[in-house]
This record gives sequence, structure tokens and C-alpha cells, in this order.
Amino acid sequence: MGGPIGFGIMGCAEIARKLCRAIGIAPNATVVAVGSRSPDKARKFIADNGLPATTRVHGSYEALLDDPDVEAVYVPLPTSLHAHWVIAAAGKGKHVLVEKPPALNTAELDRILEVCQINDVQIMDGTMWMHHPRTAKMRDLLSDPNLFGQVKRTNSIFCFNGSPDFLQNDIRVKPDLDGLGALGDAGWYCISSILWANDYDLPKTAIAFPNPVKNEAGVVLSCDASLHWEDGRVATFHCSFLANLTMDLTIIGSKGTLHLNDFIIPFEESSANITFASDSLLNDAVTAWATLSQKHVVSTDLPQEALMVTEFSRLVSEIKESGSKPDYKWPTISRKTQVVLDAVKASIDSGSKPVQIVF
Amino acid sequence: MGGPIGFGIMGCAEIARKLCRAIGIAPNATVVAVGSRSPDKARKFIADNGLPATTRVHGSYEALLDDPDVEAVYVPLPTSLHAHWVIAAAGKGKHVLVEKPPALNTAELDRILEVCQINDVQIMDGTMWMHHPRTAKMRDLLSDPNLFGQVKRTNSIFCFNGSPDFLQNDIRVKPDLDGLGALGDAGWYCISSILWANDYDLPKTAIAFPNPVKNEAGVVLSCDASLHWEDGRVATFHCSFLANLTMDLTIIGSKGTLHLNDFIIPFEESSANITFASDSLLNDAVTAWATLSQKHVVSTDLPQEALMVTEFSRLVSEIKESGSKPDYKWPTISRKTQVVLDAVKASIDSGSKPVQIVF
Repeated sequence: MGGPIGFGIMGCAEIARKLCRAIGIAPNATVVAVGSRSPDKARKFIADNGLPATTRVHGSYEALLDDPDVEAVYVPLPTSLHAHWVIAAAGKGKHVLVEKPPALNTAELDRILEVCQINDVQIMDGTMWMHHPRTAKMRDLLSDPNLFGQVKRTNSIFCFNGSPDFLQNDIRVKPDLDGLGALGDAGWYCISSILWANDYDLPKTAIAFPNPVKNEAGVVLSCDASLHWEDGRVATFHCSFLANLTMDLTIIGSKGTLHLNDFIIPFEESSANITFASDSLLNDAVTAWATLSQKHVVSTDLPQEALMVTEFSRLVSEIKESGSKPDYKWPTISRKTQVVLDAVKASIDSGSKPVQIVF
Repeated sequence: MGGPIGFGIMGCAEIARKLCRAIGIAPNATVVAVGSRSPDKARKFIADNGLPATTRVHGSYEALLDDPDVEAVYVPLPTSLHAHWVIAAAGKGKHVLVEKPPALNTAELDRILEVCQINDVQIMDGTMWMHHPRTAKMRDLLSDPNLFGQVKRTNSIFCFNGSPDFLQNDIRVKPDLDGLGALGDAGWYCISSILWANDYDLPKTAIAFPNPVKNEAGVVLSCDASLHWEDGRVATFHCSFLANLTMDLTIIGSKGTLHLNDFIIPFEESSANITFASDSLLNDAVTAWATLSQKHVVSTDLPQEALMVTEFSRLVSEIKESGSKPDYKWPTISRKTQVVLDAVKASIDSGSKPVQIVF
């Protein structure tokens, strides 16, 4: 068995701190190089994040991609740069862990996925919560027809309070950097959780709510949408940079109800809760509940971001050592999420017309 | 000071059991008579609910209304009968506590309210949760600009699993009895909670989601809608007879988030919780939360339905003893709720067109 997968970090974005730590914790991954247009920034990043002094500094992303010890790159760049740099990385045979949203739209993502496929390169987007063991435990609960039944209604909320500086200067409010705004950033999580809850069965229609809040440059700061399946299932989501930090996932089935209030980042690193109720009933007098929800506690040795890196690196190792083809499970999930995001965006742009979702 | 307000119960509906107990518990109310088209049913109701043997039995609603000891009536009849019997009661000077929804539509409610006003009769609808001290405590939290700020997003869910018998035979699925179905029954609570959260500032527009589930007779069994304010506030609700019992109220403000999972009927009779978070933040590493929500516990000596009866009876006593005019706070809340319900119904009937809300 080979050693850990050597990662190159492309740029010193704020989020890269978290992934740098995760790569350090993951047993099968290690940071070997940092690339930045400013070598001083890269050196500071290496020092600030406790990386060994032997970590290589590259003064350009091209140089990072030419480093033979870099087997995989982590791409935390603004969304508008993803296509260029992921395609460049894949072209050089580097596996890619890319921040979400992986692309500005599905057409762009398809170009990315095609190049990855041609080059036998693994790609995964950085949606961490799906790698927490709590998520697997939730799947067990939802899959049990006696406990949960069929999913009927999903509601997902991710909002946080952007500071005045964030709302003025963050890349996520700039049309040329992260033009999808709150929909691409916070909304990605909402859509991913809704698709997850519905076992990746795609809705038929997306309808954005009228009058999303946009900044002067037309970037969405807050929006809502509903998703509709042919069998009557409905989901709603709310994503916003303009309200108190909230991360709600509610999944209601014919026989059960699941609640999380921290679905994206668990309240605590080492364990996370699921609030789950089944066959809920009131008492005979209809004055209180006869049944109460249960709290399932799921512990984890590694934080979810390290589990994501571990899973990605495992797939890369299999390609490297056993000549496996890249796994297509994760990119398919990315693509489904992006397809729904596109439909919501199209509905926003059309003034809330229903938009058909075609995979 | 006079004695307790004498109540007549109009019909022996299932829900009347709960209110009968509540009238018994309320310190300023007492059941003096039960009216039913079947005197045997009324006698059984009196025995089953532990009412004194002196409780009068009336073989018709007319006779109940002619009983001089009946000062107020509780009307748990199907919605389609409300207008007729509330107007009859008010015409005889009886105060009225009427089950929700108080009417089939606003025009009908306005006829009811007019007759009550002309006859100086107090009317209140049976929305119990608003009378729980938890609701007042929630108002304190939401009113604090430092804790909650401005409301941005409200989500309310009330669904329960109707049994096969319920879905076939309950009055709430019959077009000629409770033609508003899940919208009138469960949806009333959702709308009332959304209006409450927004301090009764009415939304401008209601948009029903496409394809609500209806039974063969066209009665709504499950539906959703969004409500929109001119300043960008948004609310959604889901009401259904087809999913596991769930009673969620989520209110997100610029600085705080409030969660209840039992807003209509608290998990326990003697105390109820509020989950409230303010200025929520993640830790520096963005791997967990730096702040957690607080649980506020609100105890109550009387269950909320008895507090509702107490408040209603207090208003009736003031009219009786001090010659006060009927209080218009509660009927105004009823009317606002009914106006929004009408708009949602109109949107459903128009195939999800946005409907303007005019008070």
C-alpha cells in the first residue's frame, strides 16, 4: 500500500484553513505544497497552519500543477475560476477536491466532469456534512419503512448574518467571482440536503419565490424556492446572507419526522445528534403528546471534513494502486445538485416561473 | 363580582370533550347545559365527562339557546354550520366560543362578527396555543431588538396521519361539512402562527403551491403555501392529514432564531419549552458552533385550553358586570387569519396564481 495522498492547496482562501487542517488529520492524506500568486501569502499560510517547513511554495497555480509530488489539488478558488483550474488540474492528471458549487452551471460542470473522466481523475465537491457518520445513521432511520415510511415533505434552511464587510467585499457577493451568491453558497447545502433526503430522486419542477433580495450588482443575497415531485412530494428551502445563523433540516415522512438544527456543521465536533420521531401520537385527552421524539447521538473520531478528505483520498488510492476507474457516485451527486441549482436560478431569472428539471 | 360564566355546549363532537374539561378547570366558567339533536347522546356526554347530574340536557340547539342560564355557548359544530348557529346564539345575546375556522370564508365571518357586534356579544375562536404563557414569553423574546431583531422568515408545519377511517369519514374530509379540509383545520394553526410571528402585519400576497392533494370530493388533504410581505419577509407553511404528526414553528430574525416542535399542543401539559438562539456564531476554525441555543421553560398551572376559556370568560364577565363593550382583539385576529386562509384557498383554486391579501 502506498503512502498518503499528496495534496496541493490552490490559493490561500479562508476556507482553505479548515481543509488544510482536515488533510492533516486524515490518515491517508498530507499537504505537500501550497500555490498562490503571492509566495509570501503561501509562506504565511504554511506557517499559520502549522504545516512542516518542507511544504513547497509555488508562486503560481501552474507551478503547483507541475509539481510531481502533488497527486491531488484542493481548489478553494472563487466559483468563476473553478472550470479553468479544475480542467487544468485534470489535464495534468491531478485528482480534484473542489469547493462547492463546483461550477457556475451544469454546462460548465459537464465540461469539468468530461475532462476528469478522460484523464481518469477523481473529482469530489467539498460538501462535508454528507461524510459525517450521522448522515449514514439518518439514512438508516429514513430507510426503515416501519420507522419513517415514505418521505412527504422536506424543508432546509441555511442562513447566516453577513457582516457589513462581508456584504460589501466577500467573493460571494461579487458577480464576477461567485455570481450565484447566497444560492450558490448557502443554497447548495439546502439543495444537497433535499436531494439526499429524497434519495437523489430528482424533483420535476423548481419554483423560486418572487422578489429574492439582490445586491446592487444583481447577486442574490437571500432567496427561497420550492421543489416538486410528480408523486406529490414537496420541498422548500431558504438560503440567505441576511439572517441569524440557522441550519435546519426537517424531513417528514408518512410515519416519521426527522429534525436537525445543525445539519451543515454539527454543534460539536466529536458527536452530533439526530432528533427523530416515529408514529407520533397525542394523548387520549388531546392535551399533550403520548410519544416523544428520540435523540440519537452519533460520535465521530474524525471531524466530517477529515472524513471527506479520507474518502476522497481512499478513492484516489484505489485509482493509483489498483488501477480502478474514478468513482462516479460523488460527481453524480454534485451534478444533480447543480442541475437543481440551475433550475432554481432559471426560475429566479424568469420571475418565478416553474422550471422543469432535466438531468 | 358575579359567579362563573355558564356555558352551554352545542353538540357532542369529539373536540367538545377537551373543552368541557377546560371549562371545568377554568376558575370563572362552568358547564350548565349540553344541547344535542340526540338527548341520549347529550346524557352520555354528561356522564362520560364527569359533569354534575344537574347539567341540563336540551334536545335541540334552539332549546339550548333559549336556556336563560346559558350565558355563553361553545360551538364545536362542523364549519359549515358555524354561521347559522353563531348568528342564532348572538341574536339571543349568548357569547360565543367557536371552533376554528370560525367560518367558511371572510364574507361569512363578517356576517357573524356584525351580528355579535350589534348584540354586544363576545366572540372568540378556539385557537388554544395563543393563550399558553409560552406564547407571551416568545413575544418577549421576539420583541427584544437585541435578541431577535427583525423577523425575516417564518415556517410553520402542522400535519398528522389521518387513519383510514378519518380519511373516509371525518367531518374534515367532507365537502358539505368542513369543505376547507386540511387547510381549514391544520392550516388555520399554521396561518395563525405566521401572523402571530409577524405581529399581525398582514402579508401582501399568498401563493399556494401547485397540485395540493385532494380527495375524490375535492377536499384538500395536504397543501402548502408561501406568504410574501412588501418588505421582503417570507413565510411558508405545510398542512396535511397525510404525514406523521408534526407541529413545527420556526421564526428567523436578523439576530435570533426560535424553534418549537410542539407549537399547537405542548409535549407536556404543565410546562413547555422554547428553543431560542441569539447572535449565533461558529467557532474560529468553522468546525463547530461557538454559541448554542437556550431552552426557556415556561410552566403553567392551567393547560392552555383552560387559559383560553378563562380569558374568554373574563371578557364576558366584564361585559356582564361593567357594561364593557366586547373586546375586539381576538375577533380581529380571527378575521386576519380567515382573510389569509381565503387568499390561500383562492390561490389553490386558481392553480397557484398569486393572490393579493386585502383586509
